[in-house]
Amino acid sequence: MPVTLVQVDFPHSGPWGAEMAAAFEGLAQSIAAEPGFLFKYWTEDQAQGIAGGIYGFASRTEAEAYLTMHTARLQGFGVSGIRGLILDVNDTLSRIDKAPVL
Amino acid sequence: MPVTLVQVDFPHSGPWGAEMAAAFEGLAQSIAAEPGFLFKYWTEDQAQGIAGGIYGFASRTEAEAYLTMHTARLQGFGVSGIRGLILDVNDTLSRIDKAPVL
Repeated sequence: MPVTLVQVDFPHSGPWGAEMAAAFEGLAQSIAAEPGFLFKYWTEDQAQGIAGGIYGFASRTEAEAYLTMHTARLQGFGVSGIRGLILDVNDTLSRIDKAPVL
Repeated sequence: MPVTLVQVDFPHSGPWGAEMAAAFEGLAQSIAAEPGFLFKYWTEDQAQGIAGGIYGFASRTEAEAYLTMHTARLQGFGVSGIRGLILDVNDTLSRIDKAPVL
Protein backbone atom coordinates (compact mmCIF):
# COMPACT_ATOMS: atom_id res chain seq x y z
CA MET A 1 0.00 0.00 0.00
CA PRO A 2 1.46 3.43 -0.87
CA VAL A 3 1.79 5.67 2.16
CA THR A 4 2.30 9.42 2.26
CA LEU A 5 3.84 10.75 5.47
CA VAL A 6 3.05 14.04 7.18
CA GLN A 7 5.90 15.24 9.43
CA VAL A 8 4.98 18.03 11.86
CA ASP A 9 6.88 19.59 14.75
CA PHE A 10 6.61 22.82 16.70
CA PRO A 11 7.87 24.44 19.90
CA HIS A 12 5.94 23.13 22.89
CA SER A 13 6.18 23.88 26.61
CA GLY A 14 3.95 21.09 27.91
CA PRO A 15 1.92 19.24 28.96
CA TRP A 16 4.06 16.11 28.44
CA GLY A 17 3.56 12.38 28.76
CA ALA A 18 0.53 11.29 30.75
CA GLU A 19 -0.71 14.88 31.12
CA MET A 20 -0.44 15.40 27.36
CA ALA A 21 -2.35 12.17 26.82
CA ALA A 22 -5.15 13.28 29.13
CA ALA A 23 -5.36 16.71 27.47
CA PHE A 24 -5.47 15.41 23.89
CA GLU A 25 -7.32 12.09 24.08
CA GLY A 26 -10.37 13.57 22.37
CA LEU A 27 -8.25 15.11 19.64
CA ALA A 28 -6.50 11.77 19.07
CA GLN A 29 -9.87 10.07 18.64
CA SER A 30 -11.02 12.69 16.12
CA ILE A 31 -7.75 12.40 14.15
CA ALA A 32 -8.30 8.65 13.77
CA ALA A 33 -11.47 9.46 11.82
CA GLU A 34 -9.86 11.85 9.30
CA PRO A 35 -10.16 10.93 5.59
CA GLY A 36 -7.32 8.69 4.45
CA PHE A 37 -5.80 8.51 7.93
CA LEU A 38 -3.71 5.41 8.61
CA PHE A 39 -1.71 6.14 11.78
CA LYS A 40 -0.06 8.86 13.87
CA TYR A 41 2.94 8.71 16.14
CA TRP A 42 2.52 11.50 18.68
CA THR A 43 6.03 12.85 19.29
CA GLU A 44 7.44 14.89 22.14
CA ASP A 45 10.80 15.88 23.53
CA GLN A 46 10.68 17.77 26.77
CA ALA A 47 14.44 18.54 26.82
CA GLN A 48 14.29 20.29 23.44
CA GLY A 49 10.79 21.73 23.99
CA ILE A 50 9.33 20.12 20.87
CA ALA A 51 6.14 18.23 20.10
CA GLY A 52 4.56 17.04 16.88
CA GLY A 53 3.57 13.97 14.93
CA ILE A 54 4.45 11.55 12.18
CA TYR A 55 1.34 10.54 10.25
CA GLY A 56 0.61 8.04 7.52
CA PHE A 57 -2.09 8.80 4.95
CA ALA A 58 -3.43 6.69 2.11
CA SER A 59 -2.93 9.45 -0.47
CA ARG A 60 -0.99 12.66 -0.97
CA THR A 61 -4.23 14.59 -1.54
CA GLU A 62 -5.60 13.52 1.83
CA ALA A 63 -2.23 14.21 3.52
CA GLU A 64 -2.18 17.76 2.11
CA ALA A 65 -5.76 18.43 3.17
CA TYR A 66 -4.98 17.22 6.69
CA LEU A 67 -1.81 19.31 7.01
CA THR A 68 -3.63 22.46 5.89
CA MET A 69 -6.44 21.87 8.38
CA HIS A 70 -4.13 20.83 11.23
CA THR A 71 -1.76 23.78 10.76
CA ALA A 72 -4.70 26.17 11.05
CA ARG A 73 -5.94 24.27 14.12
CA LEU A 74 -2.53 24.50 15.82
CA GLN A 75 -2.36 28.22 15.05
CA GLY A 76 -5.79 28.51 16.64
CA PHE A 77 -4.30 26.90 19.78
CA GLY A 78 -1.70 29.71 19.77
CA VAL A 79 1.12 27.54 18.36
CA SER A 80 3.71 29.25 16.15
CA GLY A 81 6.90 28.01 14.51
CA ILE A 82 5.09 25.02 12.98
CA ARG A 83 7.16 22.99 10.52
CA GLY A 84 5.06 20.68 8.36
CA LEU A 85 6.23 18.50 5.46
CA ILE A 86 4.41 16.17 3.07
CA LEU A 87 6.80 13.33 2.19
CA ASP A 88 6.59 10.43 -0.22
CA VAL A 89 7.87 7.08 1.00
CA ASN A 90 10.48 5.27 -1.08
CA ASP A 91 8.80 1.87 -1.00
CA THR A 92 11.76 -0.27 -2.12
CA LEU A 93 14.18 1.09 0.47
CA SER A 94 11.54 1.24 3.22
CA ARG A 95 10.60 -2.41 2.68
CA ILE A 96 14.27 -3.40 3.09
CA ASP A 97 14.16 -1.45 6.36
CA LYS A 98 10.96 -3.11 7.66
CA ALA A 99 8.78 0.00 7.63
CA PRO A 100 5.31 -0.95 8.91
CA VAL A 101 2.09 -0.84 6.86
CA LEU A 102 3.80 -0.99 3.47
CA MET B 1 7.12 -1.82 23.26
CA PRO B 2 8.55 1.68 23.77
CA VAL B 3 9.79 3.24 20.55
CA THR B 4 12.07 6.26 20.14
CA LEU B 5 11.81 8.01 16.77
CA VAL B 6 14.62 9.63 14.83
CA GLN B 7 13.38 12.29 12.39
CA VAL B 8 15.92 13.39 9.76
CA ASP B 9 15.57 15.59 6.69
CA PHE B 10 17.97 17.52 4.48
CA PRO B 11 18.11 19.30 1.12
CA HIS B 12 18.44 16.77 -1.70
CA SER B 13 18.67 17.14 -5.48
CA GLY B 14 18.27 13.50 -6.46
CA PRO B 15 18.33 10.68 -7.28
CA TRP B 16 14.64 10.03 -6.57
CA GLY B 17 12.34 7.02 -6.56
CA ALA B 18 13.67 3.94 -8.34
CA GLU B 19 17.06 5.56 -8.98
CA MET B 20 17.37 6.43 -5.29
CA ALA B 21 16.45 2.85 -4.41
CA ALA B 22 19.15 1.48 -6.71
CA ALA B 23 21.77 3.88 -5.34
CA PHE B 24 21.05 3.19 -1.66
CA GLU B 25 20.01 -0.49 -1.50
CA GLY B 26 23.29 -1.45 0.18
CA LEU B 27 22.97 1.36 2.71
CA ALA B 28 19.39 0.28 3.49
CA GLN B 29 20.59 -3.25 4.19
CA SER B 30 23.33 -1.99 6.51
CA ILE B 31 20.89 0.27 8.38
CA ALA B 32 18.65 -2.73 9.09
CA ALA B 33 21.54 -4.23 11.08
CA GLU B 34 22.17 -1.20 13.34
CA PRO B 35 21.86 -1.74 17.12
CA GLY B 36 18.31 -1.23 18.35
CA PHE B 37 16.98 -0.58 14.84
CA LEU B 38 13.29 -1.35 14.35
CA PHE B 39 12.28 0.32 11.07
CA LYS B 40 12.94 3.20 8.70
CA TYR B 41 10.63 5.03 6.33
CA TRP B 42 12.81 6.50 3.60
CA THR B 43 11.27 9.89 2.77
CA GLU B 44 11.61 12.07 -0.31
CA ASP B 45 9.87 15.02 -1.89
CA GLN B 46 11.18 16.01 -5.27
CA ALA B 47 9.06 19.16 -5.50
CA GLN B 48 10.52 20.59 -2.28
CA GLY B 49 14.01 19.09 -2.84
CA ILE B 50 14.01 17.19 0.46
CA ALA B 51 14.97 13.66 1.49
CA GLY B 52 15.34 11.98 4.87
CA GLY B 53 13.96 9.29 7.08
CA ILE B 54 11.71 8.43 10.00
CA TYR B 55 13.27 5.69 12.12
CA GLY B 56 12.12 3.64 15.06
CA PHE B 57 14.65 2.49 17.65
CA ALA B 58 14.23 0.29 20.71
CA SER B 59 15.89 2.81 23.04
CA ARG B 60 16.81 6.49 23.19
CA THR B 61 20.49 5.62 23.72
CA GLU B 62 20.57 3.62 20.48
CA ALA B 63 18.62 6.32 18.63
CA GLU B 64 21.12 8.97 19.74
CA ALA B 65 24.11 6.84 18.75
CA TYR B 66 22.60 6.25 15.32
CA LEU B 67 21.79 9.92 14.72
CA THR B 68 25.34 10.97 15.64
CA MET B 69 26.83 8.36 13.29
CA HIS B 70 24.36 9.01 10.47
CA THR B 71 24.78 12.80 10.60
CA ALA B 72 28.54 12.39 10.21
CA ARG B 73 27.98 9.92 7.36
CA LEU B 74 25.66 12.34 5.53
CA GLN B 75 28.19 15.15 6.00
CA GLY B 76 30.78 12.80 4.48
CA PHE B 77 28.47 12.46 1.45
CA GLY B 78 28.61 16.27 1.14
CA VAL B 79 25.14 16.84 2.62
CA SER B 80 24.58 20.05 4.58
CA GLY B 81 21.51 21.55 6.21
CA ILE B 82 20.73 18.30 8.05
CA ARG B 83 17.92 18.54 10.60
CA GLY B 84 17.83 15.61 13.03
CA LEU B 85 15.57 15.15 16.05
CA ILE B 86 15.31 12.44 18.69
CA LEU B 87 11.65 12.19 19.72
CA ASP B 88 9.83 10.19 22.36
CA VAL B 89 6.53 8.62 21.38
CA ASN B 90 3.47 9.37 23.51
CA ASP B 91 2.25 5.78 23.77
CA THR B 92 -1.30 6.46 24.96
CA LEU B 93 -2.15 8.91 22.19
CA SER B 94 -0.28 6.93 19.54
CA ARG B 95 -2.16 3.74 20.39
CA ILE B 96 -5.47 5.58 19.96
CA ASP B 97 -4.14 6.62 16.54
CA LYS B 98 -3.08 3.09 15.49
CA ALA B 99 0.67 3.74 15.34
CA PRO B 100 2.39 0.50 14.26
CA VAL B 101 4.82 -1.55 16.41
CA LEU B 102 3.63 -0.14 19.74
